[in-house]
Amino acid sequence: MGSTVADPNVHQVNFPTPRSFGATFKSHCKETFFPDDPFRQFRNEKSFDKFKKAVQYFVPIYEWLPNYNLRTFKFDLLAGITIASLAIPQGISYAKLANLPPIIGLYSSFIPPLVYAIFGNSKHIAVGTVAACSLLLAHTIGEKVSPKDDPTLYLYLVFTATFFTGIFQTILGLLRLGILVDFLSHSTITGFMGGTATLICLQQLKGMLGLTHFTTKTDVVSVLHAVFQHRDEWKWQSAVVGVVFLIFLQSARLVRKKRPNLFWVAAIAPMVVVIVGCLFAYFAHADKHGIQIVGHIGKGLNPISIKYLNFKSEYLGVTLKAGIITGLIALAEGIAIGRSFAIMKNEQVDGNKEMIAFGLMNLVGSFTSCYLTTGPFSKTAVNFNAGCRTAMSNIVMAICMMLVLLFLAPLFRYTPLVALSAIIMSAMFGLIDYEEIYHLFKVDKFDFVICMAAFFGVAFISMDYGLIMSVGLALLRTLLYAARPATCRLGKISDSNLYRDTEQYPGLTRMPGVLVLQLGSPIYFSNSNYIRERIFRWIRDEEDIVELKGSIVEHVLLDLSGVTSIDTTGIETLIEICKMLNAKEIKMVIINPRLDVLEKMIRSHFVDKIGKESIFLSIEDAVEASLFSLSKDKQYQVTGQLDFF
Amino acid sequence: MGSTVADPNVHQVNFPTPRSFGATFKSHCKETFFPDDPFRQFRNEKSFDKFKKAVQYFVPIYEWLPNYNLRTFKFDLLAGITIASLAIPQGISYAKLANLPPIIGLYSSFIPPLVYAIFGNSKHIAVGTVAACSLLLAHTIGEKVSPKDDPTLYLYLVFTATFFTGIFQTILGLLRLGILVDFLSHSTITGFMGGTATLICLQQLKGMLGLTHFTTKTDVVSVLHAVFQHRDEWKWQSAVVGVVFLIFLQSARLVRKKRPNLFWVAAIAPMVVVIVGCLFAYFAHADKHGIQIVGHIGKGLNPISIKYLNFKSEYLGVTLKAGIITGLIALAEGIAIGRSFAIMKNEQVDGNKEMIAFGLMNLVGSFTSCYLTTGPFSKTAVNFNAGCRTAMSNIVMAICMMLVLLFLAPLFRYTPLVALSAIIMSAMFGLIDYEEIYHLFKVDKFDFVICMAAFFGVAFISMDYGLIMSVGLALLRTLLYAARPATCRLGKISDSNLYRDTEQYPGLTRMPGVLVLQLGSPIYFSNSNYIRERIFRWIRDEEDIVELKGSIVEHVLLDLSGVTSIDTTGIETLIEICKMLNAKEIKMVIINPRLDVLEKMIRSHFVDKIGKESIFLSIEDAVEASLFSLSKDKQYQVTGQLDFF
Repeated sequence: MGSTVADPNVHQVNFPTPRSFGATFKSHCKETFFPDDPFRQFRNEKSFDKFKKAVQYFVPIYEWLPNYNLRTFKFDLLAGITIASLAIPQGISYAKLANLPPIIGLYSSFIPPLVYAIFGNSKHIAVGTVAACSLLLAHTIGEKVSPKDDPTLYLYLVFTATFFTGIFQTILGLLRLGILVDFLSHSTITGFMGGTATLICLQQLKGMLGLTHFTTKTDVVSVLHAVFQHRDEWKWQSAVVGVVFLIFLQSARLVRKKRPNLFWVAAIAPMVVVIVGCLFAYFAHADKHGIQIVGHIGKGLNPISIKYLNFKSEYLGVTLKAGIITGLIALAEGIAIGRSFAIMKNEQVDGNKEMIAFGLMNLVGSFTSCYLTTGPFSKTAVNFNAGCRTAMSNIVMAICMMLVLLFLAPLFRYTPLVALSAIIMSAMFGLIDYEEIYHLFKVDKFDFVICMAAFFGVAFISMDYGLIMSVGLALLRTLLYAARPATCRLGKISDSNLYRDTEQYPGLTRMPGVLVLQLGSPIYFSNSNYIRERIFRWIRDEEDIVELKGSIVEHVLLDLSGVTSIDTTGIETLIEICKMLNAKEIKMVIINPRLDVLEKMIRSHFVDKIGKESIFLSIEDAVEASLFSLSKDKQYQVTGQLDFF
Repeated sequence: MGSTVADPNVHQVNFPTPRSFGATFKSHCKETFFPDDPFRQFRNEKSFDKFKKAVQYFVPIYEWLPNYNLRTFKFDLLAGITIASLAIPQGISYAKLANLPPIIGLYSSFIPPLVYAIFGNSKHIAVGTVAACSLLLAHTIGEKVSPKDDPTLYLYLVFTATFFTGIFQTILGLLRLGILVDFLSHSTITGFMGGTATLICLQQLKGMLGLTHFTTKTDVVSVLHAVFQHRDEWKWQSAVVGVVFLIFLQSARLVRKKRPNLFWVAAIAPMVVVIVGCLFAYFAHADKHGIQIVGHIGKGLNPISIKYLNFKSEYLGVTLKAGIITGLIALAEGIAIGRSFAIMKNEQVDGNKEMIAFGLMNLVGSFTSCYLTTGPFSKTAVNFNAGCRTAMSNIVMAICMMLVLLFLAPLFRYTPLVALSAIIMSAMFGLIDYEEIYHLFKVDKFDFVICMAAFFGVAFISMDYGLIMSVGLALLRTLLYAARPATCRLGKISDSNLYRDTEQYPGLTRMPGVLVLQLGSPIYFSNSNYIRERIFRWIRDEEDIVELKGSIVEHVLLDLSGVTSIDTTGIETLIEICKMLNAKEIKMVIINPRLDVLEKMIRSHFVDKIGKESIFLSIEDAVEASLFSLSKDKQYQVTGQLDFF
């Protein structure tokens, strides 16, 4: 086998001088942390303009408020009032879910929306508390301190966890670690939400049936056991009221589904339930007929809670854990929701900026008696449908909440617990996304398994384990794919110069003696053994076919177009493969290595070892050169006859 | 923008009916666990031949022994005797390193080689104990039980750990989980070996200086501190003898390096040191002059130790941990070494079969008073150089060891500890691979960091932490690359139909209004956000250039040739991108999706959504169709003028 002839018609590979480490490192860092190129707008600006742009960048309100006008305000006013009417029942309900006094839920709808309006860059997100995180918080902190035995300490620990959430989210945003949120896949979130919703629904049986004794555990088995254990406590009055409320709420949702422009029916339904419940409880003295009510709610704005933050080492572990896990989930939910609504309006949302906004809002919240808030789906959807134009709707909502806190809060003391349970249950029904789960099942079984791991893990083990299992599976999958990259044999499409997968396109032309393989994805330590084994299997398979015709493989052409990077183990493996092939009298040829790969090949002297004449720019050139240097009898075969398989 | 015209000259994409879940699952499992297709040889065989082949497959000795002849035996005899002469000093030394009685080291060179000869499929591996695993075993088990205070319990726990190693390795092999070993990268092993070697060298100062008090900790700081703390115990006699031995051993290594055919000089040098040491100690009564000796060594073959295995829950954690970690390292070392020698002779080693062989050998070893063995580099290299032909050399070594155990063992009681220290030190010098470390530094900085994490982690923290840190970094890198896959803009090479990276090949032809992007590696939940951001950045960048010419992007062509797989999040992201592009009046086109990807696109109705006419087989077809449907003024620009950048 002679070396290939330098043909002027062959397209030349550009062998670059490898870039310096600094240059490649900088470009890698940029791709990892600044894929959206946030500094782009600051280029070519004078220093004062640069400063102004930077303020606008970090404080978006500065960007839109100066141009704000009355016409836009009308939209935001309507949207703000609508979401405020939703914020009151949701605030009270979810606070109950987190084992907190109901007033904390109302506080949490006052300060955080104001902070978000200043720093947030989504126009549609309506800030509020969320069910899943409320329950997770209750579960994690409840393991250490019982909310019944020491409600004050429990409350302070929740503030501390919220403080850590704020710090964590802000730092993630500042360090541009949005990449962490990327690892919570859509399948995980779907399963986690579904599992949590199931769990919360079952937990609401406590309120629906008017039970006074219940379990603090959060798994389906314990919850159902607790419900049936206390059958003697079941109160039919409570159940009847609950079912009526639930039917009303579900009907309202149905109306919204059928007639999207009647969205406000579903939006104010919970408020109607609360008001009707209060009136009913007040006039019918419901609390004396087996229907429990919320009880005392104070008047006045958020008290300062910064002095209550508890950093004692005894509780540090649990508050940190609760803060970080809930913070991550809240981010994933909030950012995903902001993004999906932005897409509908063809706008962009900057994930890292959102993180800073969420972080600051929770930080300030933890100083002012609020607990974890984010951009919940239900409220944001209502805000969007109500026609909000800017974050001003959050300010309107906050002002409404302020008025409620100052004047109306005590009136809500008569809210029956069963009304809250009905509100929560109704909201949860919407979170179990059957269609999406079925879609996952149909399209990708592994995604379905990841989703189910979260669903059943949350429902039957515990919320954090379910989440960890699911994320673990998703990471395992990523590693598995990295360890077993797809390879394929290429054949020529007749009447063209295209080479494609022979499995995908049956009937492609093959050249006896020349085997063209395409390697996909990076070549790493974790897959280099596999790639070596696989290449030799391709050769054996090829020879099994060709054997019948008394011919063997003389050239192996490796198309590296799809190999985006390589590490030292990968390069050494290529050298090994080359040696092993040479021992079998097979020539190895490399096709179209990409910049990063080629640089490393040059730096590790791989190119010197296999020779520049063995590296081609296109498959066609490589095949032609290989056919040219085939042994004589094979050449006859090629020119005399082209086999079709 | 009208839809593209169906041109008979355009190559058609083959839209397959998606394969059933069973078919894809089977093919994925095959690639993951059976990349080497071990069942290939059983196909087209009758049932009896199949059985015979299966036995040959699992018991390789059955394959080579029937054809074994005297001529081959001569080579194996010589090699076997040579490695036996190395096995005695190494056995005693490494047993000392593991805080075990020296005789255990000799036992470990008798039974395990016999088992390996039956099941092993490498012709060159010489079985024996290894320094790094000996130290790791001592470190892990020593944390729970002191070898000084309760040597018997300590010994039994070592047997138990070896038992777990055997079980673990066998299971890995049977389940074909060679994939786990793939995750110990070459960089990690290099760093780990280097760090361990440094540590062991420093530890040998104890023997060299004749110290009696020492630390049980295994980090550089503690070890050096212990050496200098006991300065009053330093014995010059010991140091002098040690340095003389060390110089002799290093000179022997130097001889081998200069004259490879004199390999036997280095091979028998340790034995010479032991014999000279024994004679010297015996005649000079060295033990009375500050030179410690090994002391009593019994006579007789391996006693049965199966009854001593200790499965008490108290020790289960530590024995399991020690067994699994050392088992994994031993596998990685043994398989890598077997493979690299096989490559020199152009032979194949089956990693999964090797695991079973190593596992069985440790399992039987743990029943017969042996501790962890594998295929160490030094011994295997000697075996190879001595001209071994088959695993028979291991049988010869075992028989030699049997004779030693039966008749000569007690003679070694006079071996000075300082001689063992010199032997260990000399062996360790060879394990710090400066050249390889420098190579890593030069070629790939991240590989270098992974290597250094193992090196310094092992040297300054502890062996297991060093290993975990390094593997963690390597995995993090894999995940990072998966999260930030390389993308590039393609341009046309003039006078051809090739499209290549414009950064790599400056001076390519661009088509105003048409942007061709190549996406590399799988599209996943972890990188789909990034890919969306990146595509829009490409568009902005493109428009920044083209703006000067008053033109904007009208078509975005995504070349998916390099995308080997996709998950549901990835597909949804593509749909999102398509929507966002459409909102900007940009048309998205998909080029050459691979089989797996196309199947999922069909199943998730992606193809229906973007239309079959937007999916092309080749970049050229897609570009032509896009140029055809460009707006009128742009068409003029294209035909009138082709810009070169």
